Amino acid sequence: MHTQRVANLIERAKAQGLEAVVIMPGPNAYYLTGIDFHLSERTTLLFFPVNGEPFAFCPKFEAVRVKEGAGIQKVFAWGEEEGPQPVLNAAMAETGLGKGILGVEYLAMRVWERELLAGAAPELRYENADAILGALRGVKDAEELALMQRAAELVDAGVKAAHEIIKPGITEAAVEAYMTKELEKLGVKPPLHIMVASGPRSAVPHAGTTDRVLQEGELIWVDFVVHHEGYVGDITRTFPVGNVTGKLAEIYQVCLDAQAKARAEARPGMSGAQVDAIARDYITSKGYGEYFTHRTGHGLGLEVHEAPYIVGSNHEPLAVGATFTIEPGIYVPGLGGVRIEDDVVLTEEGARALTQYPRNLIG
Amino acid sequence: MHTQRVANLIERAKAQGLEAVVIMPGPNAYYLTGIDFHLSERTTLLFFPVNGEPFAFCPKFEAVRVKEGAGIQKVFAWGEEEGPQPVLNAAMAETGLGKGILGVEYLAMRVWERELLAGAAPELRYENADAILGALRGVKDAEELALMQRAAELVDAGVKAAHEIIKPGITEAAVEAYMTKELEKLGVKPPLHIMVASGPRSAVPHAGTTDRVLQEGELIWVDFVVHHEGYVGDITRTFPVGNVTGKLAEIYQVCLDAQAKARAEARPGMSGAQVDAIARDYITSKGYGEYFTHRTGHGLGLEVHEAPYIVGSNHEPLAVGATFTIEPGIYVPGLGGVRIEDDVVLTEEGARALTQYPRNLIG
Repeated sequence: MHTQRVANLIERAKAQGLEAVVIMPGPNAYYLTGIDFHLSERTTLLFFPVNGEPFAFCPKFEAVRVKEGAGIQKVFAWGEEEGPQPVLNAAMAETGLGKGILGVEYLAMRVWERELLAGAAPELRYENADAILGALRGVKDAEELALMQRAAELVDAGVKAAHEIIKPGITEAAVEAYMTKELEKLGVKPPLHIMVASGPRSAVPHAGTTDRVLQEGELIWVDFVVHHEGYVGDITRTFPVGNVTGKLAEIYQVCLDAQAKARAEARPGMSGAQVDAIARDYITSKGYGEYFTHRTGHGLGLEVHEAPYIVGSNHEPLAVGATFTIEPGIYVPGLGGVRIEDDVVLTEEGARALTQYPRNLIG
Repeated sequence: MHTQRVANLIERAKAQGLEAVVIMPGPNAYYLTGIDFHLSERTTLLFFPVNGEPFAFCPKFEAVRVKEGAGIQKVFAWGEEEGPQPVLNAAMAETGLGKGILGVEYLAMRVWERELLAGAAPELRYENADAILGALRGVKDAEELALMQRAAELVDAGVKAAHEIIKPGITEAAVEAYMTKELEKLGVKPPLHIMVASGPRSAVPHAGTTDRVLQEGELIWVDFVVHHEGYVGDITRTFPVGNVTGKLAEIYQVCLDAQAKARAEARPGMSGAQVDAIARDYITSKGYGEYFTHRTGHGLGLEVHEAPYIVGSNHEPLAVGATFTIEPGIYVPGLGGVRIEDDVVLTEEGARALTQYPRNLIG
């Protein structure tokens, strides 16, 4: 258990008037306790009451792993014959929870667990605790930043490999295969889920790799993530195939400038919406606003997508220590698309890029 | 979209009195539509009303993928600025849903989607649709069986590779590495998650591979899965290292006979509990019941573990077309263990093994 992180959680839970926060198997459980459980059909919950010690609810055969892995000594374990409900009822009765408001992860808890809790404690009310966890995990400590820097170096190496091999006549799949091979040499474990999209396909923001053959004069982008000791690096680079001119060169330059502007102007205290607007307003001013069809970025850490989101609907101020992507894109249907993505950490001075591979790749 | 599968879903939904079934990104969505979406924070739902055409609810930038990938033409797409709620409200109003009972996947839908639905249609009630999907996916069609047969051939090739290399003096890790290399030649993509456990370690049912050196006269088992075009093959074989005699040879023979008996006697209409009992009663009659510490098997298909489970608590009849594993084991702490696992499909005549690698490997 990470005592300081749990103490921070409790402090925020108290401030929100919660009786307890309950955490599902997944990245929040890993962040708070170090336990790396997979979500399955076998109900597992970690309870952090604002008054009283943390306790766990899990299958009998996992009780030892929870005690040793998470450092939680109080465990309510259910057997496969009886199922989870009776033991959950007993746990809620014994701990005295169930009269107040429980903070739950709206994006992790399933209807299954929600119904079990309703069965055990009908009076319990629920509030979304995702913002609390997002705020805690949204500020990286030094240990986390070191791991993210290494993850960023690995994705830099991946786009370098792509750059080496991209030319007219080879396939998207060959680009992916070469990147995979080069990354494996650096100890990166597959699967990599590399997206490689060329020509008109590059106008589809989440297109997957195919056997399409690259043609002179078109754009190709590669987008992928690497996991390094739990933390994620994420990058996109767009490359020219041979010599790229005309409208494709124009959208490349607009995207490049928008991305650089957002990186240069982002500051702590700005909201995700404000950083999004920097890139979006610039692209709109150049006449391509309607072709920038997604948010400017997302938080990055234990998950590929996490708070803070760099999106028009996020009006929370960005904190020093926040790590997120800046990745505007312009996608012209039938013609092609461009996206340039970096991982950054917010310092007092502004956004410092963790990914460093060159961005000015055309002309 | 798999029209027949969707028709079967609708038929069962009608019988259960549901207004519609809503499906989250994941294996059920893949099964019904062929679309392979990852679950994320961006709300995506596929609606299958019992009256009216299917429709999708997804982020704007995914609308093309949903239309082309899932073959669903009616798409309500939400933008990142406004968020999902307003468009979901409009979708529920326009389609006229929201007055009846919605079938949802309790083990997949999160509180997040549940609250969005509650916001859009406060009168909506919910029922668990997991059993409907389990029943549909529990009976494989010809196309699925062909893919599973190929997956089974691939895992057969993996244990053949293990058999070639196992001998005193090499390590568990070397066995795994050789299997991995041979499987990659057949186009199998890593990661393979092969478990190799030898000597006393083989008495731990879920032991992972280590650098332990194999010793003359002991047992070693390998257990792993392969994914082939969405479908899973799963196998365990136990091998002798050199010449195996005495109690190890005895538990091997008991497990071999129990596994053969369960394969020979399984019939459609039997429950998972009954098939489990065939293997368990035989092993118990030979005095090793207490060392058979897990269920006899699990359903297999798009997921490694799915319905139907071959376990004492499953009293549902097994259908023709069900695919599952039969994998009894005997684990004597400190001495060693044996597990023999095949994938089978249930036909009118009984269980037909998909995995075919020889089982009688000792003596």
